[in-house]
Amino acid sequence: MLASTGPTLAQAPGPQPQPTSNPVPARSMDEIIAAATPGDWRTPAHEDTLYLELESGRVVIELAPDFAPEHAANIRALARGHYWDGLSINRSHDNFVVQWGDPAEEEADRKPLGEAKAKLPAEFVRQAAGLDFHPLPDPDGWAPQVGFVDGFPAARHPDAGTAWLAHCYGMVGAGRDMAADSSNGTELYVVTGQSPRQLDRNITLVGRVLQGIERLSALPRGTGPLGFYESAEERTPIRAIRLASEVPEAERSALQVMRTDTALFDELVEARRNRRDAWYKTPAGHIDLCNVPLPVRAAPDSEATDD
Amino acid sequence: MLASTGPTLAQAPGPQPQPTSNPVPARSMDEIIAAATPGDWRTPAHEDTLYLELESGRVVIELAPDFAPEHAANIRALARGHYWDGLSINRSHDNFVVQWGDPAEEEADRKPLGEAKAKLPAEFVRQAAGLDFHPLPDPDGWAPQVGFVDGFPAARHPDAGTAWLAHCYGMVGAGRDMAADSSNGTELYVVTGQSPRQLDRNITLVGRVLQGIERLSALPRGTGPLGFYESAEERTPIRAIRLASEVPEAERSALQVMRTDTALFDELVEARRNRRDAWYKTPAGHIDLCNVPLPVRAAPDSEATDD
Repeated sequence: MLASTGPTLAQAPGPQPQPTSNPVPARSMDEIIAAATPGDWRTPAHEDTLYLELESGRVVIELAPDFAPEHAANIRALARGHYWDGLSINRSHDNFVVQWGDPAEEEADRKPLGEAKAKLPAEFVRQAAGLDFHPLPDPDGWAPQVGFVDGFPAARHPDAGTAWLAHCYGMVGAGRDMAADSSNGTELYVVTGQSPRQLDRNITLVGRVLQGIERLSALPRGTGPLGFYESAEERTPIRAIRLASEVPEAERSALQVMRTDTALFDELVEARRNRRDAWYKTPAGHIDLCNVPLPVRAAPDSEATDD
Repeated sequence: MLASTGPTLAQAPGPQPQPTSNPVPARSMDEIIAAATPGDWRTPAHEDTLYLELESGRVVIELAPDFAPEHAANIRALARGHYWDGLSINRSHDNFVVQWGDPAEEEADRKPLGEAKAKLPAEFVRQAAGLDFHPLPDPDGWAPQVGFVDGFPAARHPDAGTAWLAHCYGMVGAGRDMAADSSNGTELYVVTGQSPRQLDRNITLVGRVLQGIERLSALPRGTGPLGFYESAEERTPIRAIRLASEVPEAERSALQVMRTDTALFDELVEARRNRRDAWYKTPAGHIDLCNVPLPVRAAPDSEATDD
């Protein structure tokens, strides 16, 4: 039999037929998502939702103020001041990150920050107390424990009482220089490759991409050092970055994020930890934090989004 | 201080300054690579080297016949018969794989295989005995032990005596249908996202990309199910796939791969496990198999390659 051009490598959202021999077949991820009730989803706050507008369309980002309150506040101020409008995506480093901000090399040539602060504290870790941390039972090499907090992949250290966001695909962080407190949210990056977990606790993560990451991850790679573009022509212009709260309701992308603190989500993780469809011959018996899908959908009562 | 547009997120091959307070500074990855002796490198065999020729340039792949001898032999036969010439890249699934082969949906419309076999055995695992397995001391959630075999990321099960290649970024596999033995090497995929280790022991890996992966990983994502392109126009034509042994010497990409069974390589892994440059504030103390870089260089006595 020839290898077909069809779904020869099964992965969501593809079909996942159940083995007929199983008397109580486990549900597939698609079936689990289809069975979700309204209470299994949450709607990100408009104040925490950023729209990065490119010629190719919109990228939707949810901020994580529980982990980076100062950065989230500054990013809101930058967005309200239209700071990024007319700036550009300046870097695409294969198997690592895409990054945007002010391409000016000289500080004197940089765009003014308006109402935003030039300097913020580092927000690498926070106290674990007060977070609704939903742990993953699977071991992790980078942290004593990993799991999810309101839909964000995270880690914590039970003895130290600290928690932090994890550098998984699609996570958004604030670029910095050598000093730990040298990020202010003007330079943002998105993870577009193998999870660079070595960055955890070394740089401030501020959120994650909910929709449209392919508008970033498929950008041509920069050929300069660290994947920076070598000429202005290679950069992708940013039309605007706006808070959803600043956009007319009709122009919003009405999205919902699957809650990660429910029995349904645990079932979804198990469906991915041990694939039970007929394609898989050897279920892994394990899942890494950054391999867990975090479903996003258009809000059921919304108009179709632009994606 | 503003976050600069310079190397705000340090990663090789960027500069990695040493902390001046360290009396015996550990070498950075760049310094370790620069200090490598000729014996730290090996030259892939021409019979195991594939050139995937696209309009954008060449992608160089090294086959892994130690793990997939039947597939490697069939892929050689397919390349000698110019099987892929004029076929196309048919799929780019964000954060997963790029895949190529015959886009024809009907078996009757498919390109004949020439001297190659239509059917092969599954080569998911092999006996660990006989492999020069260089273990990584770091724990792994997907396998009892992970490490490297001649430059390929791999795993093994000491009790079962089995070993297999691991689905890291850049690994190349043979697409299959439902049956374990339904791959024959005509459909090949490359991992272009977070390592899908759940595929380990479920599909035959045949090698890895040594150079030019950005010609695949930055392709526009397909908008059909599983990232397949929905129209012929979206597909990227394959000019040719050739074995290096079939190409005139002057047209070869003379590459060397760093050996993974040396003290130098162990030092490199440690330099990535615990980053000691001033940018990092909290070394991870751990590295995942798929985060270990596997250096490739132009052979020192060769002409410049096309990359």
